[in-house]
Amino acid sequence: MNKTKLTPKSKNISNWYLQLMELAELADYSYAKGTIVFKPYAYAIWEQIQKTLDNWFKQDGVENAYFPLFIPYSLLEKEKTHVKGFSPELAIVTIGGGEKLKEPLVVRPTSETIMYATFSKWLKSYQDLPLKINQWCSVVRWEKRTYPFLRTSEFLWQEGHTAHLSNDLAKKMVLKALNWYYKLYTDYLAIEPFIGQKSSAEKFAGADETYAIETPVENGKSIQSATSHNLGQNFSKAFNIQVLNKDNQLIYVWQTSWGLSTRTLGALFLAHGDDKGLILPPKIAPYQIILLPVTNDNKVLSLTKKLEQDLSNDFRVRTDLKLKKGLGWRITNWELKGAPLIIEIGKKESQSKQLTLKIRNRDNKININQQNCRQEIAKLLDELQTDLLTAFRKKKQKLLQKVETKEEFIKAINQKKFAKAYWCESKLCEAKIKDDTKAVSRVVELDNLNQDDNRTCFYCGKPAKREWIIAKSY
Amino acid sequence: MNKTKLTPKSKNISNWYLQLMELAELADYSYAKGTIVFKPYAYAIWEQIQKTLDNWFKQDGVENAYFPLFIPYSLLEKEKTHVKGFSPELAIVTIGGGEKLKEPLVVRPTSETIMYATFSKWLKSYQDLPLKINQWCSVVRWEKRTYPFLRTSEFLWQEGHTAHLSNDLAKKMVLKALNWYYKLYTDYLAIEPFIGQKSSAEKFAGADETYAIETPVENGKSIQSATSHNLGQNFSKAFNIQVLNKDNQLIYVWQTSWGLSTRTLGALFLAHGDDKGLILPPKIAPYQIILLPVTNDNKVLSLTKKLEQDLSNDFRVRTDLKLKKGLGWRITNWELKGAPLIIEIGKKESQSKQLTLKIRNRDNKININQQNCRQEIAKLLDELQTDLLTAFRKKKQKLLQKVETKEEFIKAINQKKFAKAYWCESKLCEAKIKDDTKAVSRVVELDNLNQDDNRTCFYCGKPAKREWIIAKSY
Repeated sequence: MNKTKLTPKSKNISNWYLQLMELAELADYSYAKGTIVFKPYAYAIWEQIQKTLDNWFKQDGVENAYFPLFIPYSLLEKEKTHVKGFSPELAIVTIGGGEKLKEPLVVRPTSETIMYATFSKWLKSYQDLPLKINQWCSVVRWEKRTYPFLRTSEFLWQEGHTAHLSNDLAKKMVLKALNWYYKLYTDYLAIEPFIGQKSSAEKFAGADETYAIETPVENGKSIQSATSHNLGQNFSKAFNIQVLNKDNQLIYVWQTSWGLSTRTLGALFLAHGDDKGLILPPKIAPYQIILLPVTNDNKVLSLTKKLEQDLSNDFRVRTDLKLKKGLGWRITNWELKGAPLIIEIGKKESQSKQLTLKIRNRDNKININQQNCRQEIAKLLDELQTDLLTAFRKKKQKLLQKVETKEEFIKAINQKKFAKAYWCESKLCEAKIKDDTKAVSRVVELDNLNQDDNRTCFYCGKPAKREWIIAKSY
Repeated sequence: MNKTKLTPKSKNISNWYLQLMELAELADYSYAKGTIVFKPYAYAIWEQIQKTLDNWFKQDGVENAYFPLFIPYSLLEKEKTHVKGFSPELAIVTIGGGEKLKEPLVVRPTSETIMYATFSKWLKSYQDLPLKINQWCSVVRWEKRTYPFLRTSEFLWQEGHTAHLSNDLAKKMVLKALNWYYKLYTDYLAIEPFIGQKSSAEKFAGADETYAIETPVENGKSIQSATSHNLGQNFSKAFNIQVLNKDNQLIYVWQTSWGLSTRTLGALFLAHGDDKGLILPPKIAPYQIILLPVTNDNKVLSLTKKLEQDLSNDFRVRTDLKLKKGLGWRITNWELKGAPLIIEIGKKESQSKQLTLKIRNRDNKININQQNCRQEIAKLLDELQTDLLTAFRKKKQKLLQKVETKEEFIKAINQKKFAKAYWCESKLCEAKIKDDTKAVSRVVELDNLNQDDNRTCFYCGKPAKREWIIAKSY
């Protein structure tokens, strides 16, 4: 590991983040433009996320499948808004098996078109609905600027795709998926994101409505953290996905798609952490407990082994036996990596009934009895999980500022805040805000969705009904 | 579902297999040449396989990671035998983000080169060894002829990649991985494959040695079912992967790679099954028990629900409520899909203490007591698992034939057998056999690896030391 001193998070969060890619062994840049290696420690967090979401999906009757990586260009073109939105960022295969291809193949940027061409063959009757398919895979969207996890040419994600008999049913699905994402962020990642609907300029190419969760960062930037789209009948008409309804009439199905990607890892790393490194919420950390034997004394090693065995039933435990590195180095290393709980096991512990613990967000060490350590540790990890969410909520509250005028808005954006303001919702006004300030509408929060106030737009002065969250974005 | 009558397996196994792709909802052809959709029922089996292998890998300290899909052509070229082996089947991206790329990007056919370029940055000292990385992903190898699961341009797999301090340690890893695959096939898929080493003509491009398991099919064709390669120092020299050993000398590491793909699903479908459809071994079936309520009588439905709840703790259970389809249709459907156990729940069952069961490989129905049904069902599923392996072993034995002369060999191959014969192991002889008969050496079995007999080659008459399995292949 590189011994470069970590830039304090409070000084420069961007440098802090980029340095941690190497220091906490999260990612490496790779050889094709914009691509990264997801190193084992970061990938293990992705696996925790996968397990959690996949479980919820399956309980709801969503089935996993796998559709091809390659989409013939002619399929992508079928939904006009969709192809327009994605064409600037496509990677295209033109040679296969040593020959120039007659039709170029797009490496999937998302799978609506390749899936829905097949859905049209699967669906015949209302009895085949709802169809709920999910896929875990990688997708490619060409990027000029790379930022590990948050902006990469290839990323990992899940994409859910469903078909329903009515718009109402589709809309329910859209919100259900959105709530899974919100729950993952809040209950597991200790992040309380903004949750709401996107403006028409910011919605998914081909959707009627896009909902999203957004993670605020203290540098005033928002991370679009997951999206859920109501596709209406746009794709079912383009791909001719019709079923016979109960009255024996052919109708176009109503569709949704929703996705959460490895951007989530970027959001997680930025959300918590301090000048010593990452802080990972216990519910999602690859290892919740790190056992550090101080010496290779037999008694020390046998107590370590015993603890590993005992605790592994209830927790994700890892023993770090790199004794040559010294205790201080190993503690620093696991603090960099944000391990929730470190247990030092030295001669003292091997001869007493005590354990010495270090919780990642507290400065002082804690002594507990070995005998009932399981319950004590569970309690401490729960407290850490709660502490992180509480701290995040405070940060979010501090970042949020209500504004009423253009001047207040510009001041807020310059102070790296998230503005909340009555906005006219017009595409023209949105473009102007972006040109002038680089800020963009993020969401109208679910609580404000049905607002119907008689107000004026903070920016252009035209009528405005609802309050929006507006900020710069990653 | 299509009501086309299934071709009997005994009559034409190839038609039977292809018809089941649709009838048992396993795969659909997709739009780019050679690609298929892995439908939920087949994908669920892949998930069972993933879970099983992933668990063994992790217990052994193998860590999952994710490396990019795109390999710059110049990286692929670094190991000369490797690029020569793979170049005829590459898919190549030449356009990215609307621009012609300066250097074309290869869509990974396998990840040795993209991984090892990075390994050379990670590894410094013997203390960093062994490095054990695994990746679950899809790979692309252009195919002219498509055969679902067995021959597709894109397939799913895992690829393990390790680096060690000595050839001995690498070789141990090669055999450990090979044994995981053998155990998965034998203990879970109820397939006892041939297990052994490949000839030099058939080994992996860039490897010193390739080991493989091979599944025999009754049409006389062998399915290469998983491979494990000893890469020696071929790649570490090409990618300059050096570490300081204990004597502080720089040495090139010794490497292995090993992979198992969704071909396994093809092998599984072909291995068992009968004229009614698939038969899935209980240990790997997506659903081990299918509950079929006969009517929508309240008592029937409440017994169904109770059974689902009770049995779900111990088994993978699915209730089929498509009552409109009728009982006969549903039974036929789940027999096509190879469900191990079907429980019919009618009025009789709802009023008695009996259950009516149908085990997929037996003609008669079985009655058991509802009260201790859990143990009874576990026993029946175990018996089915054992029956399938026993039946497979018998088939394998019948397919295998020792031959001593060219004439005997040609006769055996024409009779769709797997020949076992003393062979000279020369590339020239292998090419001649292939030209004349389309058969190829599959493996020298582990038991015959150290044979050192004084015999003559069955084909060319030159000296031969060891017996080989020789057959046509998929």
